[in-house]
Amino acid sequence: MFRPQIKVLDCTIRDGGLINNHDFDERFVRVVYKALSEAGVDYMEVGYKNSKKIFSSSEYGKWKFCDDDVLSKVIDGIESNTKISVMADVGRVDMEDIKPAKESPVDMIRVASYAKDVDKAIALVNEFSQMGYETAINIMAISRTLDNELSEALHQLEEEAKADVIYIVDSFGSLYQESTEFLVKKFKSILKTKEVGMHGHNNQQLAFSNTIEAIIHGVNYLDGTIFGIGRAAGNCPLELLIGFLKNPKFNIRPVLDVISKEFIPLRDKIEWGYIIPYAITGMLNEHPRAAMALRSSEQKEDYREFFESLTITEVE
Amino acid sequence: MFRPQIKVLDCTIRDGGLINNHDFDERFVRVVYKALSEAGVDYMEVGYKNSKKIFSSSEYGKWKFCDDDVLSKVIDGIESNTKISVMADVGRVDMEDIKPAKESPVDMIRVASYAKDVDKAIALVNEFSQMGYETAINIMAISRTLDNELSEALHQLEEEAKADVIYIVDSFGSLYQESTEFLVKKFKSILKTKEVGMHGHNNQQLAFSNTIEAIIHGVNYLDGTIFGIGRAAGNCPLELLIGFLKNPKFNIRPVLDVISKEFIPLRDKIEWGYIIPYAITGMLNEHPRAAMALRSSEQKEDYREFFESLTITEVE
Repeated sequence: MFRPQIKVLDCTIRDGGLINNHDFDERFVRVVYKALSEAGVDYMEVGYKNSKKIFSSSEYGKWKFCDDDVLSKVIDGIESNTKISVMADVGRVDMEDIKPAKESPVDMIRVASYAKDVDKAIALVNEFSQMGYETAINIMAISRTLDNELSEALHQLEEEAKADVIYIVDSFGSLYQESTEFLVKKFKSILKTKEVGMHGHNNQQLAFSNTIEAIIHGVNYLDGTIFGIGRAAGNCPLELLIGFLKNPKFNIRPVLDVISKEFIPLRDKIEWGYIIPYAITGMLNEHPRAAMALRSSEQKEDYREFFESLTITEVE
Repeated sequence: MFRPQIKVLDCTIRDGGLINNHDFDERFVRVVYKALSEAGVDYMEVGYKNSKKIFSSSEYGKWKFCDDDVLSKVIDGIESNTKISVMADVGRVDMEDIKPAKESPVDMIRVASYAKDVDKAIALVNEFSQMGYETAINIMAISRTLDNELSEALHQLEEEAKADVIYIVDSFGSLYQESTEFLVKKFKSILKTKEVGMHGHNNQQLAFSNTIEAIIHGVNYLDGTIFGIGRAAGNCPLELLIGFLKNPKFNIRPVLDVISKEFIPLRDKIEWGYIIPYAITGMLNEHPRAAMALRSSEQKEDYREFFESLTITEVE
């Protein structure tokens, strides 16, 4: 039995862009949009609305900036009910770049924030909401957030934020299903007027099962990416999520097709997925940056030494 | 807080042997045994006790037969508390090959069976038990077993089998955590005098999370393989399982080491893991054999057509 309230958000291009400086070509993004549209996916997140005053467009690809005209061109002429989402970072967005929602191809804007910084995220998201966008706040690094800070942030979000959805983000891929259950119950007990979302990372092959766990306990906004693409270990594989969901509107076939034709060749060029150093940072509840540095070095397969390097230092 | 009753059984060589006709060389098996011994793994399963009257030793490697003298040589001189396990199939074992346990390097014998065939499995396992072996019966294809047949089999196992452990085997990698919970509770409610085990397959990246789910509900015997090796999608990755378990006796470092040095090069030669056709058979609750055939063909990446081929036929 399916829940009609369930929405799937694909962030293939946005999270995949973290591997290649957001430099997917327009043909690729168009092919992905077409596949997601045919698959019945509710949202496609394409990148960040970053200011060109802060980041150089010679260093980064188009999806670091997500200009409305580029977006309009890429989706033009494709029959679709898939809405477009972008992310915006506190302090890195130029509000002059943001048109009112009805003049933009963008439907949803999501703001990522640590629990302790929700004041800023709320202020930003309320501006977007005022302009007519659907909005979400993604609470990052949740596995390292103290319960009192999280409670305070959630109460504030419930009372002050105009965001439609608040996401649990397992930034380090360290959650097991018991902690996912705990967090979902906590979010839902405080966020009475909002939807809750789940964004998993796949360091320990748990992004999909944590997403299922979140669904079981009432989460309705679910992030995934095609073939699990994303920085480091990547995300919940969209094809598994669509294979699991019973909602009749979803169709796995176009996703299988685009994996065959685009993502198998792409995986030979850029790396993501189940790779031991990312599994190790997941187990240790650490940011993957040390593992990403290792994978760019000649010691990329020296797993034991990497494990020691993260565990040998005295903390106190 | 850890449960001292938890036992980890590594079946790297046994299940990995299904990819290469059980033809690992003795050096490799010795290296794996040493790593598992240092890691504190409780059991290492090395292969099958098959009759040479039925299978030719020119067609299959040593681990199809697991002669006691070969085994003794491979483990000789390595300090270890890791017990040795083999599998035996109903009708394919030559009882003349089985010495009393105290004269053999083998500690445990496991018999795999469908629920409807437990009579034969019980008869065989009781012979092994009589000879002094620890024993287990693995109930295969559990995701396709009717509840009445399963209930009958479990009652019979509880009353007649001398087996120490009865395993849930998710042969098709199709279980989600809710069904794992259901099955574990069912097994434990009937098998009052036995331990329950979990053997997952990783078609949908759920072998590890299903194993965690089984642990949560009281399963104490846990199968895994190094780097998830095994036929088709492979098994629960041992390194993730050891990273999760809190029992102080386990040490992940030797496992990380042997992955670096042996399994990364091996993965370039033989294929296992998260591969879309295996994910599809998992979603559809099908044996992976059609996907294995596909992967040996020129259509190996034609996922959509493969999905259609499994779903288009009328069943009735």
